[in-house]
Amino acid sequence: MKAILATTLIGTLARALTIKTVGTTDIAEGTLAMDSIQNGRTLTNYIPVVFVGAAARRVFDRTTAGSVLSVQGAPRQEKWENAEGGKRSRVRIQALRTEVLSGDFATVVDRAGGTRLAQGVNQVTLGGNLVATPEVRYTPGGDAVTDFSLALNEKYTTRKNEVKERVSFVEVTAWKDLAEFVATLPKGTPLTVLGAAVSESWTDKDGQKRSVLKFEAGSIFQVQPPEGRAAQPDAHEPISDEAAAELADMAEEDMPF
Amino acid sequence: MKAILATTLIGTLARALTIKTVGTTDIAEGTLAMDSIQNGRTLTNYIPVVFVGAAARRVFDRTTAGSVLSVQGAPRQEKWENAEGGKRSRVRIQALRTEVLSGDFATVVDRAGGTRLAQGVNQVTLGGNLVATPEVRYTPGGDAVTDFSLALNEKYTTRKNEVKERVSFVEVTAWKDLAEFVATLPKGTPLTVLGAAVSESWTDKDGQKRSVLKFEAGSIFQVQPPEGRAAQPDAHEPISDEAAAELADMAEEDMPF
Repeated sequence: MKAILATTLIGTLARALTIKTVGTTDIAEGTLAMDSIQNGRTLTNYIPVVFVGAAARRVFDRTTAGSVLSVQGAPRQEKWENAEGGKRSRVRIQALRTEVLSGDFATVVDRAGGTRLAQGVNQVTLGGNLVATPEVRYTPGGDAVTDFSLALNEKYTTRKNEVKERVSFVEVTAWKDLAEFVATLPKGTPLTVLGAAVSESWTDKDGQKRSVLKFEAGSIFQVQPPEGRAAQPDAHEPISDEAAAELADMAEEDMPF
Repeated sequence: MKAILATTLIGTLARALTIKTVGTTDIAEGTLAMDSIQNGRTLTNYIPVVFVGAAARRVFDRTTAGSVLSVQGAPRQEKWENAEGGKRSRVRIQALRTEVLSGDFATVVDRAGGTRLAQGVNQVTLGGNLVATPEVRYTPGGDAVTDFSLALNEKYTTRKNEVKERVSFVEVTAWKDLAEFVATLPKGTPLTVLGAAVSESWTDKDGQKRSVLKFEAGSIFQVQPPEGRAAQPDAHEPISDEAAAELADMAEEDMPF
């Protein structure tokens, strides 16, 4: 299925953004920190975000450590080779629409001396296909947990008008009933997952701090394959011709934010 | 501010869709019914949705009453004149991305004999400007409640390559602390509102059933006016040149779903 990658984040910049220019494109990078509610408990997260193009400069110029940002974006997997020729990849949120917020925000001071937003927002909708048949496992306490990967296939048009395809592979964790449900589905199944982005951090064997961006499912819906039956129409208040013409113009390649 | 209109709905088609052709554009219309959790309580809603273009035919052909749909869309206000020349308007959700879902869904049978999804999704992000300075009022039980209107200003390019602007006016209700907060803000203030779509129904003096689509706020954030200070950069793991070039191509007018 065609990918859905809709992310709404509201959080505090853990540090000031950094900015660089690649070719002619400005790229700003940073981390949004927030506590948010997911599956009835508070998640604390440090979400890596990338700002690209004119937005990168605009957001960089207007923010510092502690600024509160609203970011509408898409999770995207970047792939590259490191200096030794090794294949590397990581998932970050690409900001597509950013607002700098003002107001009295409750914040939490973290161990690194930064601040994170106490009542933040971290809502992600992912639509993609199961990369492999998932397997459920159980915690020592008996809770079902299933890790699975989704392939998010995007088609896009470059500034040179070439149509390209790319795929992001993202890791999702489901708990309890959702874990049992997703483990019944075969490889390739199209799914819509609602949930949150979660960052996992650890120290590797060389003592380097590492982190990875994954997702936690709050709801999982199976997308119906494109067969189906004909519908029976019924009476309905009709749309006006002028309203229809205007909506038609807004329907194609439209961006709701 | 430039509008944000991001809506995620998962619900049951209350009746089969109706379809008509306006000019050369197919328009399908229907109602998504769901119970969802907002501000800690269950909301029951019947949300009017419009499908435009190729999607209208595709969704119409694949669904019937009771089908479960995931709709990513945008709230849009339609304006028209009725047969007597009177000005009319209404707000509906324009579907921009639709999936038909399968699975075992818990449903509720409603008084009209239709079904609605028991654990649905109804998440809306609105970004716009306060149309007027809001006034707080109090319920007999002493709860603060504030109704306010947001102007959502969109720019879009028609299929004839004309750049057009349109504005949707939407009605939002805030309760308790949020009601008190929004009533401190002057007309014109740019806001980001997270919440849910809510349908209000009543019978008018001619005995006609009427309904209107409004929104209920779960969070309200004030958007900072575009002044601001320079940021202080810090050390950061750099993005690769090839990853930057690819993200740059995806940044412009990109649609995350």
